[in-house]
Amino acid sequence: MNLVLLFPEDLVAPDRARLAGRRLAHVREVHRAAVGDDLAVGLLGGKMGRGRVRRLDGEALELDLALDQDPPPKLPLTLVIAVPRPKVLNRVVAASASLGVARIVLVNAWKVEKAYWSSPRMAPENLRQQLLLGLEQAKDTVLPELRLARLFRPFVEDALPVLLQGGTGLLAHPGAEQGPPRVLAAPLTLAIGPEGGWIEAERASLQGAGMHPVGLGPRILRTETALAALVGQLALPFQVPCTTPPPLEGRS
Amino acid sequence: MNLVLLFPEDLVAPDRARLAGRRLAHVREVHRAAVGDDLAVGLLGGKMGRGRVRRLDGEALELDLALDQDPPPKLPLTLVIAVPRPKVLNRVVAASASLGVARIVLVNAWKVEKAYWSSPRMAPENLRQQLLLGLEQAKDTVLPELRLARLFRPFVEDALPVLLQGGTGLLAHPGAEQGPPRVLAAPLTLAIGPEGGWIEAERASLQGAGMHPVGLGPRILRTETALAALVGQLALPFQVPCTTPPPLEGRS
Repeated sequence: MNLVLLFPEDLVAPDRARLAGRRLAHVREVHRAAVGDDLAVGLLGGKMGRGRVRRLDGEALELDLALDQDPPPKLPLTLVIAVPRPKVLNRVVAASASLGVARIVLVNAWKVEKAYWSSPRMAPENLRQQLLLGLEQAKDTVLPELRLARLFRPFVEDALPVLLQGGTGLLAHPGAEQGPPRVLAAPLTLAIGPEGGWIEAERASLQGAGMHPVGLGPRILRTETALAALVGQLALPFQVPCTTPPPLEGRS
Repeated sequence: MNLVLLFPEDLVAPDRARLAGRRLAHVREVHRAAVGDDLAVGLLGGKMGRGRVRRLDGEALELDLALDQDPPPKLPLTLVIAVPRPKVLNRVVAASASLGVARIVLVNAWKVEKAYWSSPRMAPENLRQQLLLGLEQAKDTVLPELRLARLFRPFVEDALPVLLQGGTGLLAHPGAEQGPPRVLAAPLTLAIGPEGGWIEAERASLQGAGMHPVGLGPRILRTETALAALVGQLALPFQVPCTTPPPLEGRS
């Protein structure tokens, strides 16, 4: 927790917050803060800044707030991810939020087991909690938009074309031989398939909707590794352009 | 397990293998293979190809082997990672192996808790197991080199300059404002700090040894997310050059 995220109901005055529960425990046990210390804080959906500890005991953490910074900008990026196994879902959602993705769509696919959709981890309150953990990790206050698309075909035929308007769609596909197009117009939409990949009909639908297949080289990566590598590849975490092809061996 | 990794002791003949244990269970329960099916297999440190199932029951999996493909090339990349919390160590090591990193150095740092070094997860057999899981995930047969550097200073003063000879060293640092240098000479060495970052003296030592600080933007990422994003940023998973700065908003 690199940022203590505050909710409107934590505010006992415009410049004062009172917290309990998980955040209190974390500040006492991990941060080991004391009265007078400054903590990095942010108001959900709002500004970030400092909270000076005025009370910290077993019952409550009280902070005097000075919120004067904007949260970091979101990346103009929608991630379309086939619902992963429940075991990895939390990490995928939290990592996406921490990377600054603006929108996450969890979509069905042929190789997504039906049981994944009824996992308790797919409950809205769990998904929201994972997004909040990602924001606390990354120091951000703005929740990404999260959508569930239980039906693949209506999503691809109706929703995807709207997402792609004026932007670029990329379809991560281990078999594809090309990299991303030379010029990427924002907003960007990046689709990542399930374990085992998209089936041929899904790939055809996605390409028909305007998604360009991009290869990831010969390696098959886990969803959470692939998505971070792809977001990194698009040069976004650095927010610095990739101007020259690095002359590394092992690249063709 | 996208590749069934074979060990020399599995070979009952040059073109036949017999397996039991975890791999047998996985092939029966997850792959749900049957006699006559072809599985993707590879010999540790050697070639990859197909294994046709000739026997599959509760006791053993027997495969007829046709190994005629080279494993994917390793990236000319050394990751220097401050030992992460035991809870994340396995994922970090397996992800690094799956990404094709040639060498991993787990190094001490001021903010690495001493207890991390005595965790059972740091035992050589566990670290090797995580590397093998990464190879099985990515479809590779060649173990990365793994080194432990329990003392920061001798590592930086004696070992690091050798790693950097003729290549480029990068030091991931959330505070740094620049991206990676425009031209990266292989081999590449990339250092990723502990939770909470390198302390000032460590950063000075690393820079003194020739490591260039590179920023990751305003976000603080988990070790496993940061390393995949950085490897992706260096355009390695695609093995396709990044030639034009994508004109995305939110980048400067």
